[in-house]
Amino acid sequence: MENDLSLSPRLALGIDIGGTTTAFGLVDENGHVVSETTYRTKDFETADALMDKIHHDLQHSEWRHRLIGIGIGAPNGNYFSGQIEYAPNLLWKGVIPLVEMFKERFSLPVWLTNDANAAAIGEKLFGNATDLNDFVLITLGTGLGSGVFIHGDLVYGHDGFAGEYGHIRVVPNGRSCGCGRLGCLETYVSATGVVRSVNELASENKPFSVLNTVSEVTAKAVFQSADEGDLFAQEVVEFTASILGSALADYACFSSPKAYVLFGGIAQHHGNFASRVKHHLEENILVIYKNKIDIRTSALHGRNAAVLGSAALVFSKMNA
Amino acid sequence: MENDLSLSPRLALGIDIGGTTTAFGLVDENGHVVSETTYRTKDFETADALMDKIHHDLQHSEWRHRLIGIGIGAPNGNYFSGQIEYAPNLLWKGVIPLVEMFKERFSLPVWLTNDANAAAIGEKLFGNATDLNDFVLITLGTGLGSGVFIHGDLVYGHDGFAGEYGHIRVVPNGRSCGCGRLGCLETYVSATGVVRSVNELASENKPFSVLNTVSEVTAKAVFQSADEGDLFAQEVVEFTASILGSALADYACFSSPKAYVLFGGIAQHHGNFASRVKHHLEENILVIYKNKIDIRTSALHGRNAAVLGSAALVFSKMNA
Repeated sequence: MENDLSLSPRLALGIDIGGTTTAFGLVDENGHVVSETTYRTKDFETADALMDKIHHDLQHSEWRHRLIGIGIGAPNGNYFSGQIEYAPNLLWKGVIPLVEMFKERFSLPVWLTNDANAAAIGEKLFGNATDLNDFVLITLGTGLGSGVFIHGDLVYGHDGFAGEYGHIRVVPNGRSCGCGRLGCLETYVSATGVVRSVNELASENKPFSVLNTVSEVTAKAVFQSADEGDLFAQEVVEFTASILGSALADYACFSSPKAYVLFGGIAQHHGNFASRVKHHLEENILVIYKNKIDIRTSALHGRNAAVLGSAALVFSKMNA
Repeated sequence: MENDLSLSPRLALGIDIGGTTTAFGLVDENGHVVSETTYRTKDFETADALMDKIHHDLQHSEWRHRLIGIGIGAPNGNYFSGQIEYAPNLLWKGVIPLVEMFKERFSLPVWLTNDANAAAIGEKLFGNATDLNDFVLITLGTGLGSGVFIHGDLVYGHDGFAGEYGHIRVVPNGRSCGCGRLGCLETYVSATGVVRSVNELASENKPFSVLNTVSEVTAKAVFQSADEGDLFAQEVVEFTASILGSALADYACFSSPKAYVLFGGIAQHHGNFASRVKHHLEENILVIYKNKIDIRTSALHGRNAAVLGSAALVFSKMNA
């Protein structure tokens, strides 16, 4: 594919590969998505088939000559190797050399990182962290992901696997985690963690909760019931906020961030959640960090966040 | 003071201010200490008095014209503000604008950081981390300090207070810490933590331990007794290694370091300690980090480490 760097606006192709959905879009440097397309990931038996489809679609796009690079966010995407490595939520098994495969099709620079890192870069370029050099983005979805910015740069670590706050253990011998260990933060603070809390927590309010009457308890139902005054649901929300706030208090000892930015349905849905996290953070934090750290919510929620994040990876590298 | 940058070898003045001792020395770029002087910190009622003494001494040094900068490591030393801020172990109270005070006396660039950060920079320039861009130095002394390198740079965080691994809580409602919180890592893993373990741990071997007969139990005595076959002392060492190994396993989720470098008497004394920490780290670590992380011991122990570290701060800035 030809491209002309002098054309304006310059566009990045942002691709978000998820277990259920793959979205890709063309994004300009101001964070405007000029086009977006979505596929069901499971309709493609191989990564090659998906890539052929994306390549075909782009060749028919009026924007194709403005493209300057490709950014991909994917579960277990490794920035250094350019590979998806053993992603449990994808049909494509083993190691997939995604960057190499894209480069074969497009004569463009290609970068890959994991979905939480892409979200952090998106927040830094287009969202609620444009003023920050030191912050940690926390994604609250099925699990808990994180992307760490220090001194203005995303942290990859020596092997590309830095920023796995969801797997720091917070309760000794606590809940069993998909990683094989016990008590990881994401077993408490995530959509699935919230549902486990509903099942596991005891309370005198529990027998009277509306959650006993819903056909399937989801995190969304819990937060909505809490909004509507259900006392047990409120206790579950408070419990979740207390575990997260206490954990983030300790993790300030790593990088002393100016803010934690919370992303995802849980963070956004309940008006009170971020302020309760902040309350528990301040209750638990070392004195030198007191009253210094913001708890913010993402500005990209519901705004093609994943595609913006993946595209932001391109601009962050091209402008570095 | 005059100085001539063309003279060789170029020298940095490294100053280590501790609660008991202040050491300062002239260090060349290869880590050779060409002169070193030590004072009792408490002999100086003010920081001004100490600085006047250092300034006076240097004016009579044959090396003074080769000096290119001054690096200071001090408890609670803040890199960004250039101040010592409320150091509990110093007689000088409140906020001491150390960098400003030095600049008044010497027409040279001056940098300040805390003692653990200085040790990490020393290890990177002159010690056992010269080959590493991503590592964490852990100092095991009265407390537990840390200095974090990511992508080749020391991490300061947004306010200069990053890297306080000693105050991450590892035991919910655990031992009381000087910081006012409960269960911090340094209440278990430090010289004082080891002594507390001797007092608090129960064991069928405890009644027969040689530690019951020593006049004052110290961490050194515990490690020495363990070396000599005392079963209870060995249990205390193993307990300490297990808490540290398990904690460092979790903290890999932060920056994915290539190595942890252990510094201080505890780390060096007992031949087996580092390998036991490694054992417990591997037992507790997330699968993506398995068999990737070294546990090393410092190469600077007993080699003017604090002065080397403070001097290394100068070279790291001048050569940046």
